Amino acid sequence: MPELNRQWKLARRPAGMLAEGDLQLSETPLPVPADGQALAKVLYLSMDPTMRIWMADIPQYMPPVALGEVMRCIGLAQIVESRHKDFKKGDKVTGLTGLQQYVLLDDTNKQSFQKIPSIPFVSDTTFLGVLGITGLTAYFGMMEIGQPKKGETLVVSAAAGATGSVAGQIGKIHGCRVVGIAGSAEKCKWIMEELSFDAAVNYKQPNWKEQLAAATPKGIDINFENVGGEVMHEVLGRMNLFGRVILCGLISSYTREDPGLASFGTVLIKRLRVQGFIILDYAPRFMEAATQLGKWKMLGKLKDRETLVEGLENAPSTINLLFTGGNIGKLILKV
Amino acid sequence: MPELNRQWKLARRPAGMLAEGDLQLSETPLPVPADGQALAKVLYLSMDPTMRIWMADIPQYMPPVALGEVMRCIGLAQIVESRHKDFKKGDKVTGLTGLQQYVLLDDTNKQSFQKIPSIPFVSDTTFLGVLGITGLTAYFGMMEIGQPKKGETLVVSAAAGATGSVAGQIGKIHGCRVVGIAGSAEKCKWIMEELSFDAAVNYKQPNWKEQLAAATPKGIDINFENVGGEVMHEVLGRMNLFGRVILCGLISSYTREDPGLASFGTVLIKRLRVQGFIILDYAPRFMEAATQLGKWKMLGKLKDRETLVEGLENAPSTINLLFTGGNIGKLILKV
Repeated sequence: MPELNRQWKLARRPAGMLAEGDLQLSETPLPVPADGQALAKVLYLSMDPTMRIWMADIPQYMPPVALGEVMRCIGLAQIVESRHKDFKKGDKVTGLTGLQQYVLLDDTNKQSFQKIPSIPFVSDTTFLGVLGITGLTAYFGMMEIGQPKKGETLVVSAAAGATGSVAGQIGKIHGCRVVGIAGSAEKCKWIMEELSFDAAVNYKQPNWKEQLAAATPKGIDINFENVGGEVMHEVLGRMNLFGRVILCGLISSYTREDPGLASFGTVLIKRLRVQGFIILDYAPRFMEAATQLGKWKMLGKLKDRETLVEGLENAPSTINLLFTGGNIGKLILKV
Repeated sequence: MPELNRQWKLARRPAGMLAEGDLQLSETPLPVPADGQALAKVLYLSMDPTMRIWMADIPQYMPPVALGEVMRCIGLAQIVESRHKDFKKGDKVTGLTGLQQYVLLDDTNKQSFQKIPSIPFVSDTTFLGVLGITGLTAYFGMMEIGQPKKGETLVVSAAAGATGSVAGQIGKIHGCRVVGIAGSAEKCKWIMEELSFDAAVNYKQPNWKEQLAAATPKGIDINFENVGGEVMHEVLGRMNLFGRVILCGLISSYTREDPGLASFGTVLIKRLRVQGFIILDYAPRFMEAATQLGKWKMLGKLKDRETLVEGLENAPSTINLLFTGGNIGKLILKV
């Protein structure tokens, strides 16, 4: 076992995309677990758009990461040494590991961690994706706010992303016509051929608005929104009366000054319901959702895909991939 | 009885405020009711911000008024001659009379009309205001979307307007701290002294944002929004988690190019629910609401005020008052 822990700390608040020096890699002595502590080795890190929000000193749903602190991050870790009654060597957990190689668990932070079971044919990283926060986000957004009904049209933005791809498949399970908006031919091909979406719109093609119109001949009943900005504006313009907008993310604005403006006029005239949504609010019901997601996955109704990058040292450039459209499916950093 | 009917027809779609020539006053022979028709004389016309929307060729909740058509308008009329079994001479009705002196009722348009009762101490025009569409709008917006709870903070924009003043009082009835935003000292005084709002913010004073902050020390739980634009943006910024935004109007944008932009970022981070709302959707439940509003009015819990302008010929300048803040309470044109 190495003697050192490598950690990415927030050194400066980024302007736009992450630049060199925003995060700083430092080495500290490997902590030795005291009584009531367990040491876990981080195996995989979940790269999520919300990390960019956590880096900014703006009002948000959790305190921003302080300068000098280890960057907040969800990860999958394995206990390597335990003096805590709840954990034993070899246990695998997901939770807020931080962007680092090792993490100490004790009674002050253990509530963010969850042991993951070993299931045949289900890889560990699935618990960072479709069976983790990503899948739960898609599940509660769709079921609680979207309330999909057979025959309705669902439009998902960032449809080839970790959350969007699950949200769209949940729409298919409920009999919706599902249209995905994504930013490359490869992404569009994946959601059409592998995930069985009914249509895909490549928003980087000049005629994407016509594509969207052609793909939604009966308008749009549900919008699972991950992007914001111009894409959202166009989708709102095609919403049907009493449509539901699951406001899950506004990734197009996270690295820009633009605070995610869009028109409320449409919300009024079409009596839309736009509901902001943060997955943590549903924590007490995670098990219910994970059980359902697990069933769908076993039945082959939920397919997933990962973009895996290796090496903790590549964390900053990997996070930036989220904002340049560089990943398909769940983006994971292998430590 | 005069031989002529005077009618305001839409001659040109306005750009911004109504300009001379947008509406044209014309005279046509007074119609003679055939079998199955009744002729009603329009006594009062309800001047509503939504009329400006009806004049524009934009997507909306009813077809826009066509060029050359009599301008759509809600009014109070009295039957002067009837050959229709449902109406008799002397009956008073409210409904879509149009911006004119006389209206013919028959089976094709009678569903928009409602007979009004004669109630001691309740003036006829109350049925255009607190006991009419205005009051119903405030009622359903507050009860269905706002869902006020004791101790919550409600902020109402255009608070001295017809709808805002009722919405705020419904908040008081439910034990909310009610803060009104209005555009003059006189309006602020009225909502404070007569309607017993807890605080008033004059958005035309340079320090109005500080006034709003001081008036909402515990943040804002419910926003009954009539205005949009900068006022709404500031209110959203002070919303509490899981707040509700009743999107009832965006009057600041009706006469401008600005399509009512505001930030969805706040909606996301604070998990707000923003719901567009058009009163016509609640038509089947109007009687339930009118009964409750009537009770509150009898008990002195709902106070109202009218700004009355005389003369059908003054319709265009009267409509413009709505956009310059020229009225307090319900704006009514006496024909």
